[in-house]
Amino acid sequence: MIRSLLVASLLLGAADPEKPNIVVILADDLGYGDLSCYGHPTIRTPNLDRMAAEGMRFTDFYVAAPVCTPSRAALLTGRYAVRSGMASERRRVLFPNSAGGLPDGEITIAEGLKTRGYVTAMVGKWHLGHLPQYLPTKQGFDTYFGLPYSNDMDRLPAAKPGEPKWSQFDVPLLRNEEVVERPADQNTLTRRYTEEAVKVIKANKEKPFFLYLAHAMPHVPLFAGEAFAGKSPRGLYGDVVEELDWSVGQVLAALRAEGLEKKTLVVFTSDNGPWLIQKENGGSAGLLQEGKGSTWEGGMREPGIFWWPGKIAPGAITREIACSMDVFTTALKLAGAEPPADRPIDGLDLSPVLFGTGPSPRQIMVYYRDTTAYAIRKGRYKLHVMSRDGYGKNPAVRHDPPLLFDLNVDPSERFDVAKGHPKIVAELLKELADHEAGVKPAENQLDKDLPK
Amino acid sequence: MIRSLLVASLLLGAADPEKPNIVVILADDLGYGDLSCYGHPTIRTPNLDRMAAEGMRFTDFYVAAPVCTPSRAALLTGRYAVRSGMASERRRVLFPNSAGGLPDGEITIAEGLKTRGYVTAMVGKWHLGHLPQYLPTKQGFDTYFGLPYSNDMDRLPAAKPGEPKWSQFDVPLLRNEEVVERPADQNTLTRRYTEEAVKVIKANKEKPFFLYLAHAMPHVPLFAGEAFAGKSPRGLYGDVVEELDWSVGQVLAALRAEGLEKKTLVVFTSDNGPWLIQKENGGSAGLLQEGKGSTWEGGMREPGIFWWPGKIAPGAITREIACSMDVFTTALKLAGAEPPADRPIDGLDLSPVLFGTGPSPRQIMVYYRDTTAYAIRKGRYKLHVMSRDGYGKNPAVRHDPPLLFDLNVDPSERFDVAKGHPKIVAELLKELADHEAGVKPAENQLDKDLPK
Repeated sequence: MIRSLLVASLLLGAADPEKPNIVVILADDLGYGDLSCYGHPTIRTPNLDRMAAEGMRFTDFYVAAPVCTPSRAALLTGRYAVRSGMASERRRVLFPNSAGGLPDGEITIAEGLKTRGYVTAMVGKWHLGHLPQYLPTKQGFDTYFGLPYSNDMDRLPAAKPGEPKWSQFDVPLLRNEEVVERPADQNTLTRRYTEEAVKVIKANKEKPFFLYLAHAMPHVPLFAGEAFAGKSPRGLYGDVVEELDWSVGQVLAALRAEGLEKKTLVVFTSDNGPWLIQKENGGSAGLLQEGKGSTWEGGMREPGIFWWPGKIAPGAITREIACSMDVFTTALKLAGAEPPADRPIDGLDLSPVLFGTGPSPRQIMVYYRDTTAYAIRKGRYKLHVMSRDGYGKNPAVRHDPPLLFDLNVDPSERFDVAKGHPKIVAELLKELADHEAGVKPAENQLDKDLPK
Repeated sequence: MIRSLLVASLLLGAADPEKPNIVVILADDLGYGDLSCYGHPTIRTPNLDRMAAEGMRFTDFYVAAPVCTPSRAALLTGRYAVRSGMASERRRVLFPNSAGGLPDGEITIAEGLKTRGYVTAMVGKWHLGHLPQYLPTKQGFDTYFGLPYSNDMDRLPAAKPGEPKWSQFDVPLLRNEEVVERPADQNTLTRRYTEEAVKVIKANKEKPFFLYLAHAMPHVPLFAGEAFAGKSPRGLYGDVVEELDWSVGQVLAALRAEGLEKKTLVVFTSDNGPWLIQKENGGSAGLLQEGKGSTWEGGMREPGIFWWPGKIAPGAITREIACSMDVFTTALKLAGAEPPADRPIDGLDLSPVLFGTGPSPRQIMVYYRDTTAYAIRKGRYKLHVMSRDGYGKNPAVRHDPPLLFDLNVDPSERFDVAKGHPKIVAELLKELADHEAGVKPAENQLDKDLPK
């Protein structure tokens, strides 16, 4: 009895097995088709491939918005961004002259886990408000190191000969609430973020921690470290993704080195699909249609890899539907915290999928473009009531009758099957109406500008 | 000394380690993106994924033609089909009223391996001539069991209610040179081909053998066995591919059961890209452009998996260029035979790539549509002098100046970079002219019709 308890405790490797560490690694504008384990022919991602081989790879993992700010707000709060005011039809994301941010009343994963005694650290791109009252340290993170918004902002005239290209982007690098470098040297950003993440892991062997590592890359402008620049067959975009892959390898290695791998859930995904108008500098959605900005699958379906040796069966590929908002609910539940009951929460607990005890609780996914629900998926069917290309100049198209696609048979959304399935169309229209009836848009935070 | 020799001999598991068994498994119209290990989200291919994890997966594996007959002729002879007369601008493949076939003077893999004492067996689709003088048994195969051409030929009026759908296709099933069933029951074809292949393996434990297993599927019309019909999320196309995956698993299991896995090279690929005009019943080229019939990448780049436990390092992904014609040369060399010296051979020996001793000997790939070289690849660059959609009604387009794509950076062939690389354009044009100067088209076999 004593011996088996001892073995159990060794296996869990934890003083407090009830509170696993949670690590969320987020890429920026990475496409569904950009990893080797998702079929890319020339981007080499051995660390992510290994993470998938040791963990679980989702084929149908979604983010809650096809652009940055609303996607990140939804990930951290478990709620569609329209509920927190972090989506806008006018300004799709926050800009350096924005005056708004994630409202103080919103509850982030970090705040939820702090109620259970977690150390919380954020490294990387925030993009949920850069005025002092909106910084990560005001939203439950003990520490912060990173850029407060996108790496292509604060643009200066083009760099002069001899000046580094990154000097053209006058983005500030913050340590907690202080600017420590401006413009940030973006050539070394992925490496420095990684070193910072590893430090967080090493410093917290005895306490449960939540680490949110939100890389700036592969968002244009692309910058790769010295060890990666010019190395990938895929060119600069590949260099940058391969450095991210290295970074993931470093994080997993640090967890192993500290003996934490069996008490840590690591999640890898991206904030939205590939930025196709950037041509060779944008990624690939693989067989999916369209990319960043769009509610076609390529805009919102992402690589999704979950890793927890000993808890998640190795090498599993799951075709269950899941969403970034589910990370919120799953993390809180794993830590023994209850998601807030005083507001609608869109995230669901993925534990049954991760631990092989049952199907995904998620059957429905609503596809928001800004504050408008353009499409809805239930099971295998996806209904578009509106559509629009991600960054094209064409206006939105309202589909009446709506378009219906069977995503199992036709993941590329090529063949409208609405005519043959009137009952399913009606059912999905009703689900969408029900969803919309339950959404009360919050005060818009993205259209607030600082005084000029 | 004696002990280590014994160990070596056990490891090789072979009475005649110099002559490995060769197994080539060919799918029909399978797309680059149709296997799980190549990124398909809803087709489940655990056996092929495992074969790739235990062997080597090629990202840049080509076939020598984008349609059936010339692709198969090239695979078996190691020569572009224009050299054997097995390509035509008028009739792109052989039909039931064709009078031609692979000329007797051509040397197939089977004939090459017979000079080294191999048992040779073919199971499946031939499509290189169905008159008695052109059958597999006249081209080096000891035995044959299969359809002599495509499973959509010999079409009768639509099946009546109560009649099986396959009865509409009056295709003959041959045992050696005799018709044993007509129309062939296509529902059970994949299963029966698999059983036949397993029999070949079990019957030849003591002798080296060459097994060519050329499945009829997933060529339209699609037929899945009872155990697979209605099971795949991808629908009927997925059912059919998942049954092929099962078949591959059965072949590998039989090799293991007979203790032959360490003396057998198994190759899996397809004859050409997905038949896109078949909509949901056609496959997916993933991120590649176009499909069957076309010289865009989607028509000719295919899954390519090589498996030989103990000889090929497990889990390797190679980005070296290789081609189905190389199977001819590689197989002969492995068996200790020399490719014929009296004719041009386009195949190259892939041993350096497979066994990790060096780069691929193949730097150049010429893309034939019928008898015309439309494009050429050298290293990372591909030059199109002509292009045409696979099955569209648009005429061929001559590109002058030619289009140039960097396939490493831009595998989807979206961004023409010819303007920036005039030297590479000139170099590739010269390579193409040199290739064409060395090709003497043989008498056309595909335009010969039987008298009416």
